[in-house]
Formats: sequence, C-alpha cells, structure tokens
Amino acid sequence: MNQDYIIPDNWSIIEEGFEQDLVKSSESLFSIGNGAMGQRANFEEYYSGKTFQGSYIAGIYYPDKTKVGWWKNGYPEYFAKVLNAPNWIGINIEVNGENLDLAKCKAVKNFRRELNMKEGWYHRSFIATLQNGTDIEVQVRRFLSLDLDEVGVINYQVTALNQGAKIVFKPYLDAGVHNEDANWEEKFWEPISVRNNSNEAFVTARTFKTHFTATTFMHNSILMDGKNVNASPSDILSSHDKIEFSYEVSLAKNQSATIQKMGGYTVSMNHENTEEASKKVISTAVSIGYDELLANQIEAWAKIWEMSDITIDGDVKAQQGIRFNIFQLNQTYLGKDSRLNIGPKGFTGEKYGGSTYWDTEAYCIPFYMATKDQQVARNLLTYRYNQLDKAIENAGKLGFKNGAALYPMVTMNGEECHNEWEITFEEIHRNGAIAFAIYNYYRFTGDYSYIPEKGLEVLIGIARFWHQRATYSTYRNQYVILGVTGPNEYENNVNNNFYTNYIAKWCIDYTVEQINKIEKEYSSDYTRILNKVKLSTTEINHWKEVADNMYFPYSEEHGVYLQQDGFLDKELVKVHDLDKSQRPINQKWSWDRILRSPYIKQADTLQGFYFFEDHFSKEQLEKHFDFYEPFTVHESSLSPCVHSIQAAVLGRMEQAYTFYLRTSRLDLDDYNKEVHEGLHITSMAGTWMSIVEGFGGMRVKNNTLHFEPKIPAQWKGYSFKINFRNQILKVSVHANETKFSLEGEKPITVFVNGKEVLVEPDSLVTV
Amino acid sequence: MNQDYIIPDNWSIIEEGFEQDLVKSSESLFSIGNGAMGQRANFEEYYSGKTFQGSYIAGIYYPDKTKVGWWKNGYPEYFAKVLNAPNWIGINIEVNGENLDLAKCKAVKNFRRELNMKEGWYHRSFIATLQNGTDIEVQVRRFLSLDLDEVGVINYQVTALNQGAKIVFKPYLDAGVHNEDANWEEKFWEPISVRNNSNEAFVTARTFKTHFTATTFMHNSILMDGKNVNASPSDILSSHDKIEFSYEVSLAKNQSATIQKMGGYTVSMNHENTEEASKKVISTAVSIGYDELLANQIEAWAKIWEMSDITIDGDVKAQQGIRFNIFQLNQTYLGKDSRLNIGPKGFTGEKYGGSTYWDTEAYCIPFYMATKDQQVARNLLTYRYNQLDKAIENAGKLGFKNGAALYPMVTMNGEECHNEWEITFEEIHRNGAIAFAIYNYYRFTGDYSYIPEKGLEVLIGIARFWHQRATYSTYRNQYVILGVTGPNEYENNVNNNFYTNYIAKWCIDYTVEQINKIEKEYSSDYTRILNKVKLSTTEINHWKEVADNMYFPYSEEHGVYLQQDGFLDKELVKVHDLDKSQRPINQKWSWDRILRSPYIKQADTLQGFYFFEDHFSKEQLEKHFDFYEPFTVHESSLSPCVHSIQAAVLGRMEQAYTFYLRTSRLDLDDYNKEVHEGLHITSMAGTWMSIVEGFGGMRVKNNTLHFEPKIPAQWKGYSFKINFRNQILKVSVHANETKFSLEGEKPITVFVNGKEVLVEPDSLVTV
Repeated sequence: MNQDYIIPDNWSIIEEGFEQDLVKSSESLFSIGNGAMGQRANFEEYYSGKTFQGSYIAGIYYPDKTKVGWWKNGYPEYFAKVLNAPNWIGINIEVNGENLDLAKCKAVKNFRRELNMKEGWYHRSFIATLQNGTDIEVQVRRFLSLDLDEVGVINYQVTALNQGAKIVFKPYLDAGVHNEDANWEEKFWEPISVRNNSNEAFVTARTFKTHFTATTFMHNSILMDGKNVNASPSDILSSHDKIEFSYEVSLAKNQSATIQKMGGYTVSMNHENTEEASKKVISTAVSIGYDELLANQIEAWAKIWEMSDITIDGDVKAQQGIRFNIFQLNQTYLGKDSRLNIGPKGFTGEKYGGSTYWDTEAYCIPFYMATKDQQVARNLLTYRYNQLDKAIENAGKLGFKNGAALYPMVTMNGEECHNEWEITFEEIHRNGAIAFAIYNYYRFTGDYSYIPEKGLEVLIGIARFWHQRATYSTYRNQYVILGVTGPNEYENNVNNNFYTNYIAKWCIDYTVEQINKIEKEYSSDYTRILNKVKLSTTEINHWKEVADNMYFPYSEEHGVYLQQDGFLDKELVKVHDLDKSQRPINQKWSWDRILRSPYIKQADTLQGFYFFEDHFSKEQLEKHFDFYEPFTVHESSLSPCVHSIQAAVLGRMEQAYTFYLRTSRLDLDDYNKEVHEGLHITSMAGTWMSIVEGFGGMRVKNNTLHFEPKIPAQWKGYSFKINFRNQILKVSVHANETKFSLEGEKPITVFVNGKEVLVEPDSLVTV
Repeated sequence: MNQDYIIPDNWSIIEEGFEQDLVKSSESLFSIGNGAMGQRANFEEYYSGKTFQGSYIAGIYYPDKTKVGWWKNGYPEYFAKVLNAPNWIGINIEVNGENLDLAKCKAVKNFRRELNMKEGWYHRSFIATLQNGTDIEVQVRRFLSLDLDEVGVINYQVTALNQGAKIVFKPYLDAGVHNEDANWEEKFWEPISVRNNSNEAFVTARTFKTHFTATTFMHNSILMDGKNVNASPSDILSSHDKIEFSYEVSLAKNQSATIQKMGGYTVSMNHENTEEASKKVISTAVSIGYDELLANQIEAWAKIWEMSDITIDGDVKAQQGIRFNIFQLNQTYLGKDSRLNIGPKGFTGEKYGGSTYWDTEAYCIPFYMATKDQQVARNLLTYRYNQLDKAIENAGKLGFKNGAALYPMVTMNGEECHNEWEITFEEIHRNGAIAFAIYNYYRFTGDYSYIPEKGLEVLIGIARFWHQRATYSTYRNQYVILGVTGPNEYENNVNNNFYTNYIAKWCIDYTVEQINKIEKEYSSDYTRILNKVKLSTTEINHWKEVADNMYFPYSEEHGVYLQQDGFLDKELVKVHDLDKSQRPINQKWSWDRILRSPYIKQADTLQGFYFFEDHFSKEQLEKHFDFYEPFTVHESSLSPCVHSIQAAVLGRMEQAYTFYLRTSRLDLDDYNKEVHEGLHITSMAGTWMSIVEGFGGMRVKNNTLHFEPKIPAQWKGYSFKINFRNQILKVSVHANETKFSLEGEKPITVFVNGKEVLVEPDSLVTV
C-alpha cells in the first residue's frame, strides 16, 4: 500500500482535507464516466497547482506516428493515442475581482470530495479564504447522465461567508487542449467553429488525421437562493477555439448563487451534423431539468447495482474496494454500443492508447457475462468477429498466409495500434485469449449458436496462425514457438513460453473439436464456413501434427513447467529478498535489468493454470504457485486477482485476502505508485472474479454451477449475484452457511463443495 | 549484384545515359565531401523527378524525440537525426523563358557523370532539348575544397546549340529544407536572417533544440566565353529563409556562358559570428579564384593517394571498387577535428543518425592507423577517452555503479542517441570493440604511452561494466550474460551470445594485464589512476572470478561455439536453400520472422574469430566458418569484409574474391538494394582490410609485420602501403613474388609466410 487517505465508506469514495500533492491521485480516483464519455475529477475553476487535465470521448483517438530509429517491416504506422477532448466542465470564478485558485488561496478549509457510487455523482465542497480576504463556501455536484449519455451536469454553488461579494461565473468551452503525453505540446484538435446563442455555446473541432468531429456544448443557468434568475451573459470572450461567458451576481453575506452548467459532446460517429445534434440534446436536457436528471441518474444506477452489487460484511475497506471496481467498470462500458470496448484506463487517463486489449477476453467478459444480459458478452465476441478480416490482414503483414489471423495487441478499429515490436509481433498469446473467450462464453451461457454463426471462423483463423507460427526443432524433435513475449512483459523475445505454447496447442485442439461438432450438428453452417475459409483435411492434419508434438519446457529438478527456455539461467533471487527501495522495479530499474531479472510482472505460467485449471492437479497448481509467485512483483494490475483466486483454491485464505485487497484497492491505495496516471479499469473485472471464482469458488462444469465457498477471516460474509442462463442466482456466504435464492422460472441444480443442491425459484435454500 | 551501370574505370566513377530510375542511386554514388561537409549529387537545377535531397555538415544534428508506446526507464530521450542542411548548391536555369528540368525535357542526350577520385571533383554534362525547342549543352563541375573546408565551388556552363538563347542563371540559398525521414515534413531549421551584398548572399539559420547556427553563403560570377563579365543580379527574390539571384545573359548560337558559384557553410561549432566568418572565407576563396582552387584540390588529393592508394592489376572493377572505398573514407573523415568521427553514411544520406558507432573501432581505425599519421588513430581513441564520463553516466542510467562505463551504441557527443532498447541496452558488445581498439592501436603503432595516459581509465570503466553485467547462474555454475544483442542484429535479447561473452572475458583479462604492467612500469600513472578510479585488489579479484568462469555455449554435436543459447532451436535452413525472392530478408520479412530465423546479418561468432584469430586453430576457424557462413545473409555492410579475410586465411581464394567484390562494390553494384539511401562508409575500411589483412595476410605479432600474400585468380597483382611506426612500407604482390620497399630511416624485419626478410630503406626487396 502506497497511500491511505481515502476514507473507508460502504458506498462512497471520500477525501477530506486539501493536499496539493494528492490532487492528481484524486483526479483519477474521483473520475466519472457514463460509457460514452468521461473525465478526470479536474476542478471546474482554474487551478495553478499540479494537475492532469483529461476529458475523454469513447472511440475517439489520434494516430501518433511511430518514431523509432531503424524502421522494420511490419511495424504499425501509428500508436493510437487516447485524446484529451475539448473541455466543457470549466467554470472560472471571480470573487470580488480575484480569480479563485485553490493553489493560491490564503486558506482552504473543509475541503471534501465524495464520489457517490450508489447514485452516480461526484461532489466537492470547501471553504476558501481568498487573498482579498473574502471567505466563500463552494459546493459542486457533477454527474454524467446514464440516460442521456451525451450530457453532463454541473451544479456549482458559491456562498459569501464573511462579507458581501461580487461573484463572476465564467463558464467556458475550450478546444485548445493538448495531451499530457504530447511531444512539444503539439495539439490534436483543429478548431472548426465557435458559436453562441443566448446562454448556449457550441465549439466544434476536428481531430487531425482521424477527422473525428466533436461539438462541445454548454447551457448555463444562474440561480439565486435556488431560483433561476434568467440571467444572460454580461460578457462573452470568444476566440478560434474557445468561448467564455461571464455572469455577474452580487451576494450579500451568507447569500448563495449557483450556476447550473449542462454540457457534453455530440460526435461524428453518431451524427451527421454535430452542432445541430448538440442543439437538440441540450434542449432535451434543459427541458428535463437538473433535478429530474439527477433523480433519473440515481434510478439508473440503482438498476445497475440491483444486478451487479457484491456485499461484504464486516470489512468496510473490502466493501468499498469491490464497489469501486464494479462502479468503474460500469462507468467505462455498458455494452450499449458494439463499436466500443473496455479501454484499460477507461475515461481516467491517456496511458496505453487504444481501447481493446486481451484484457477484454481474459478478464472482463466473465464480469459482463454474469452481471449483464448475455447479449453484452456476445457483443464483445462479435466485436472480434467483425474485425477478423483486419486480423487476417495484420497476420499477412507479418508474412502469415491462407487466412491465418493475428488479432492486434491493442486496437481501436481492428488495426494494430501499438508500436513496439516485442509487443505487437511477439505478444501473440493474445490470440489464445480470444479463442478462450469463445469457449468460456459457451461454457457459461450455454449459447452454442455463436460458434457456428461466427466463432468458428475466428477459431480457424487463430488455429492457422498457431500452426504457421510454430517451427520444428530438429534438435528437440518437437515443435517450438520462438521469439515471443508471454503475459509477463518483463521478459521479451523468449523461446517456448509455456503459457503461449500451451494455449496454442489448446486453440488447435479446441478448433478441431468444434469443426467436428459443427460438421455433425450444424451441417449447413459447416458447408458455408468451409467454402468460405477453404479448409482441407490435410490442413487440419498439419495443425494436429503441431498440437500433438508441442514442446513445453520443464524442469525435472523443480518439478515445474518453465516459463520459458532460459528461465533457470536467471539470478533466482526472490522478491522477498529484494530491497524495498528497488520497488516497483518498473520505476526503479532500467528495462534491460528488468528483462534479465527473474521478476514476473503478472501471472504467466499461472495464467495457464487459471484458464486450464482442470487440466492440472491441485498438487501441480501448488507446486507452480510456490515456484513462481515468489518471483512475481504484481506490477501489472492484472496480476493479484489471478493469484487471489489460486490462493483461495489452495486454501491459503490469508494470502488470498491480501491479494484481494491488492486487486480491489489497487488504485484506492495506489499499490503500484501510478494512480495519478489514471485507474486500471480492466483489472477491476479481475477483482470481481477474485470474489466470485476465488472465495465463492464458482465454476461452470457440464452446464452446472459449482461452488466451493470460503470466507477470509476478516469478513463475516459476502454475497453476489450471477445471471446464469437468464436466471438470477443470488449467493450469500456466511460463516456456517451458504444461501441461494433464484429469480427465474426454472429450478436449477448447483453443487456446493461437490454436493448437489436444488434451488427453486423465489425460495431461499441454505446449505 | 543488383545493378551494373557504373562504367568500369581505374580512377573515376562514371555513368553514361540518363535514367530517371537511377537518379537516387547516382545521387549517393557521386556524393562529394571534404571531412567538414558534403552532399549528395543532387542536380544544381530544379528537378521534378524522384530525388533525395541532402547536404550535410559534420557534427550538426537534431534530437528527434523518441516516441514509443510504453516508456521504459533508461530510454534515451532522443534519436540524433543527421540533418539535411540548407542548400547552397542550387542554381535554377531558365532557357528562353522555360525552366530547365531534366524530368520534363523533350530529350536528354549525352548525359554523363564522372566522379574523378584522383583529383577530387564531380562533373556532369548533358545536351537537353527543352519543350520550347532550344537545345543546350550543360557542363558542371563541382568540388568541395580540401584546403578551405568551408568552401565548395560550382562551375556551371551552358552552351546554346541550335539557336540563340536567353539564359537566366538563378543561384539560390535555401534554409527551408526538411529531412526525407521527417514526420509530416516538419522542419528542423529556424531561419534567422537573410542578407545580400552585390554578388554575395548569406542565409543564417539555427537548428531547433540543439541550437547549432549555420550561415550558408554564396558568391556568384558570370563568365562569357571564359571571361568574368562582372555581372550584377538583375533581380533578387528574398524571403525569410531563402534568397535567389537572377543573372540574365543572351547567347548566340554555339556561344557559352558560365556561372561560377562558390558557397558553403560557416558554423557555430567553429565561429562566434557565423555570418562574419562567411564573409571572410568567401573573400579568401574569391581571391584564390576557381582555377587555383581546383589546382589545389588536385594536389591535395594527390597527397592523400600517395599514401593510401591500393593498386590492383588486371581487374578494373576491383581496382575501381577499392579506390571508391578509399576515396569515400577520405571524403568523410580526415582526422583534422577531434570532435568529429566517421558517420556510417558520411555525407551521403540521413540513415542511422549519429556519427560514431563501434564501426570506428572495429573497422575504421586499422585503415586510418595504417594510411595516416598515427596521431589520427590516437585522436579517434581520445574521442572515446573524452567521452568516458558520459559513458559512465550512461551506464549509471541503466543501474550500473562505481565507474562502470557503457559507451553509447551511437553518439554525437558522448550521449546515447539511438532509441531502441534492443540496441542501446543490449548491443553492449560495442564496449568490447572500444577496448580492443586500444589493444590494436598499441599492437600496431607500438605507442604504449596512450594506455597509461588515457586508455587504462577507459579499460577499467569497461571491465567494471562487464563484471557487473554478468550474472551467476546456479544452474550452470558459471557466469552468464543474459539479454544481449550480438553483432548479428537479426537476433535480439538473446542469452550468452558467444561473441559478447568472449570479448567480455577478454576485456577483463586485458585490463588486469595492463593494470599490472602499469603498476610496474608507470608507477606515477598507476597511482594517479588508482586514486581517481578507486580500484581495489578485491574488486579486481571479483572481475577475475567472472572472467575465469565465463560460460560459452558450445555444441558437441557440431563442434562449434553457439552464437547464443537458443541457436539450435531454430529452423536451420541454409541461405542457399532460401528462395531468392525472399532476399534481402530485411526488406521482405517482418521483424519477428527475421528474429526467429537462423539468418545472420553479419559476422558474429566469426567476428570473435577475426578479433582473436590467434586464440583459435585454423581447424576451429574452418569449422565455425563452415557452420555459420551458410546462414549468413551479409545484409550488413560490415559482413563481407570479415568473411573475405577469413576465406583468404583458409585458402579459399574464389570465395575470398567474391566477398571482396561484395564489400568493395557493395554500393557501386548495390548488393543490398539500398544505395539510394546513401553509401556505407564505415564498411569501406573493411574493404581495405580485406586486401591488406585478407589477401596480403598482414598481421602484427610481437612488434613485427607478418605477411602471407595470396592473389585471387582474377588479378595479376596488387600493391598497398602501410605506415608502420612512422616508416612507409610499400608491398607489391605479384604471381611469383612479393616486393617490399621502405621509405624511412631504419631497416625493418618482416616475415613472409614465416620467413624473415630484412627491408632496408629506399631499396627494393623481392621475396
């Protein structure tokens, strides 16, 4: 744990007291989003202290041209930057002629932030003493509407405390923004037009290169003592990329004035004419009004929580952690728009670029599958199906042929948009996760139809890739996979990464099984697909030759599969024996030192044991866990959850709990010293898994739910809900009993620690 | 061989006929330089066809900010781009109102280029029929003065052939240039001032970020029928970064007019006020005049050839090749300015960035050591000594301590300025070549004083690096060096590269020897150095522990050291069995495919056998040559020379000759299909070695020159000169005899095929 200033609370994230050094951390933690847009918790008013400004629109990116010394064939042309979008939240505040700036006040008292996760809003309040001696109290509530997802609302109230005050509210729109990670502060938005009309303004800008157009808009109302005074701007400042209104009010001592600013974006992904669309959406929002928008927001979040909440009794920090994770996942992706995906930083930062990693398949699909309509998970699979042609093209650029598909390491639209060869060319295991998700979707939902309709083509593309990517080693008389980067990105360009080799073999075996099944059971699909992909029995036999003779590095001495051929050559000093001053190694060590160290960023061999748990005995799991975990630094957000699940399987509850805290409070407590850059969204689905699959021990085997419930010593109990095949099963685990209740029509059978239990609809079963 | 259009000639490079597709190739091949500046053979007049414009000033670069997806600790901030400098050679030509543009003429006849290497000038001539029907003949001579190295001269003569013609000469200076490899055509020069005075103009510009200032200047004279007519410009067009004069002349049929343009650069590396310096240098040049400048040029080149020429009898192409190599080396670096070094593309292109690679130590020093005053080689060593602090700082950034030094992969000023981790962090063998050059300098010159004075500190920094970089493998009970890139850059991040491990051990052993010798023989230096570097016996013992227990991968089956641990896992298909359509693989294959292939870019294990020839038997050399050469694609310019030498050692003269042609005519015949990007300068020193060390079999052992002369079947004989310890030994090899003659004062003993021969000054000895 690196920080501990968030106040434990069951439903809210709370900060009390103004610490300039924590501003960037809180800007990340108090971020809000609604699936279509979002932003960091930047102050509305000007702030001269350290800040990381960020507003983001789903699906909008910039292709930053790759610059490396020696260009190689197959390098992607660009790295997709997540773009800082035009600012609509800004409201500068002038108090008796002085600009409010929390970094410059004489005093800031009662500073408090609250992110109310139950109701979906963010609130900030403080009392400031300005340099001119005026004391004011500020209360700001902000939310991004789930219902009208192009609209956000700010209610900014100022009260004069110690004297009367002339307040000028200066709401603005600004397209003159740049990214934190821009080189030499270059800009990515080209301003197109700035227009205004009574209390409304519209700034339209277009991204360079990608030519996304966005209109950023605002509508302002001034309220005195709670009543709209129908004020008009007393002054309007306008330039080619910015517009600012001024509203002057005079406050008596203890009197309050409020500006209600509605704003947001309409974008060319959704509208022909974005400015006209802005006018329509603003008119809708204004006619609904602030109070009702807020009431609708609370109701919309109540619906989300109804299905996806997890309760934990007796451990507020653990409770706060899991809800923060579930809240952020829902802020990032709601499954409404099939062109979107789950960006690793959501709407909280710029890092990583692009939106879709293997995180989606490996970590997020289980969460969305179990807490949403199964169509949401199917949409996520379809996203890859729709990009199969691009994956084949991508593989083609690397010399693969005949329909072999390599999905990109990260993408916005199916094209590779990362630009390091050790990742794009070599971290090919991602293909395996995409196949695994198809298997996992069918396992959980029972909806086989996806495979003959779409999934099989994806599987065939992936199997072809693995077949072509493996090479025959005369020396070993087996097939090897050379030059890869496994899930542990702290090794690059290694040979025979166990995880990669294993999932490659599995992909081929699984694909062949599905081909055989579909040939028998879906013959018209079979004919259609085989005509399309031109697959022969000879080719399938070549695949099987590779799968049946795949090499897996193994150490007899240690009784474990080796992460890669050279692992034992490393200096095997355990993390425990590493000086704390050296951690996190990704911030302390140079890249070459990390690469040749034995330290593991995230589950790698163990990721294979997680996916294919039933291929290995518990003794094997234990041996591998004991060998690899001591070298694991968990500097990937994706690491602790898998280890928490496996520790729980092994009955190591204290360790499982420690990993649980680390995954669920990774950002709240900033374990990896990087929360200022934004949150780790995709790993939050791993937190969900660590409760449901780890402590709850939930597995689906042969179309049936199995549980092996366990409770960490720190907890009295916990509960979660699963949408299992369109029925909602609630599971509550307490010390001596596990309770099940079912919303649905058909009774279902579950197994608890191997014991069969029948759960009837609308009745409570205690085991 | 990829092209064959250069006309064989003993002393000149000649092209006849105008082929637009060959323009970029010829722009490289006919490049001129004088050690301080240079440029591609771009046409003076406007050309709308495909061209690669390039003028370069030694030591001037731009720090292109590194852009990679995920920043890692220790990444260099910038990649040093070789900058296209302001253009001073431009002379647009208007003929009867039409602009001369060879791409747009009705006809171009008698087009001829000649690069006269003996005299150091470049000449171009052609007859053009313009669209308006005017026929003109053009004769242009250009050279860059060796004596006045800030000055270049162009003599551009136009003759009206079929009718009278109004000719407008439009000489210009242009700082509005950009690099070929600039992203989105960004510019690197900021214009400062544009001034003119009668027939002179001065454009001053400054590089962004690095703030080098350069004044580009010109002085123009118009000659009619060979006489200066004291013309003044009839028109002057000037902007913020460009200035163009117009000189109008009217020619009768068969009459000629000439513009003599003198131009060049004065830069802030050498002058406080670059414009004032320009005025001075131009005045000097004008007062000398064109004819005398040309006469001086011929004389200066004669002096260079006197010492460095190699003659080959009976094989014009081979003769042309070696002279082209010697000429280009002397165009690039003359050893006058100790701040400069030998850039891999010289003044012929942008690629590679930076100026100093390990090429200098591994390939160039032997050439400069033997064909120049030994001070030149000592200066090249001192260049590294002067950068030792930066090398220590560079190693520090990667976590090395206590004075460990890692020299940059490429540098302009001692800082690393390449930006790919697999190169900067991992291609650490470069450190070994820097130590080897110290050994080699002493071996050849006998000047030990460099080591106590400067070299030992460099050696100690390097030995410390190797000691810290090696790690102990419990598994092997030996020291290993993990995560490196060897000379074969077609493998990255491999373990236990034989060459790296071998040279690491050698560096430590050699350093310890020198410490012991200096302790005994140079005790005051010893005390001074040890006080400075704080070296203890304990530390030296730690070094020796590593050197004495270094692991070298070895295959019992093949009886060879393995290039790296995983080499045998590769698909060992020989180059011979690879379809020709796949070559060069660096243009046909994606990077990952290259990395996992067995193909070797340049001598790697064999580079070790070259440096440490006497550590291995001839049988071992043969075994390794036969194992590795068949996998070698020689796609590095540095590859064929080493193989030529080793083939000669093994008595395989036909193979040695083939490699000789490949190294000496690499660019002339464009073996690697990339000559349009510029020439391969540093490898040209390897060509010199392939004659002197390969065919001549020259070695220095125990302060004595040894020769084992051999002649390829295609040659009647060859001769070369060696400056051996300040005496000039000329060696002529013909079928049945080798002749030696000596310019010097003391007789020297040489060994020819093991037989002792005394060579007296100024007499001819035939063996």
